[in-house]
Amino acid sequence: MIRYGQSIKLKPGMYEKYKEYHTSVWPEVAAMISECNIRNYSIFFKDDMLFAYFEYVGNDFEADMSKMAADKKTQEWWDVTKPMQQPLVTRSEGEWWANLEEVFHQD
Amino acid sequence: MIRYGQSIKLKPGMYEKYKEYHTSVWPEVAAMISECNIRNYSIFFKDDMLFAYFEYVGNDFEADMSKMAADKKTQEWWDVTKPMQQPLVTRSEGEWWANLEEVFHQD
Repeated sequence: MIRYGQSIKLKPGMYEKYKEYHTSVWPEVAAMISECNIRNYSIFFKDDMLFAYFEYVGNDFEADMSKMAADKKTQEWWDVTKPMQQPLVTRSEGEWWANLEEVFHQD
Repeated sequence: MIRYGQSIKLKPGMYEKYKEYHTSVWPEVAAMISECNIRNYSIFFKDDMLFAYFEYVGNDFEADMSKMAADKKTQEWWDVTKPMQQPLVTRSEGEWWANLEEVFHQD
């Protein structure tokens, strides 16, 4: 299992809408997340920043992310959610959510 | 179990020192974290921001946090680590690490 921490900003004023969508995530999107081997997935918010934590239990993260990106319903979901987000200028090439570095872990 | 997301800043230039301490956390401090019912505790870093994720498995978080705060070795640890940190100006009264709001979770 690999732990991921990620971050992205919300555009100002987008919090209520973003929260509303995420309190009733579309079932097909939720199913695809599970199918792509993501578990214990939380998103937290403060000061227009979003912080995601999840655990990847598969054995090919890139392949699973490609599978997710090819899913029609997930694409529709992103068409709604991405315009609310403002990716970090410091993110790495190819990232939307920026990956964070794990500096500490204790089970 | 209750999930917590928290955030705090690192003062500029403090990353290497902070990381060094957290790759070899003092055993007494690690033991106290477990004794205070904190599990699956990760800290992530990017752009001078720290994000923490942990799961609380006890039944009195305030009491456990008071117990931790009363521990001598933990106090020594905080004497070292707190000066590296810069708490968010938007944190709530009484917070050091600011608590984040959970906007999404999927097991």
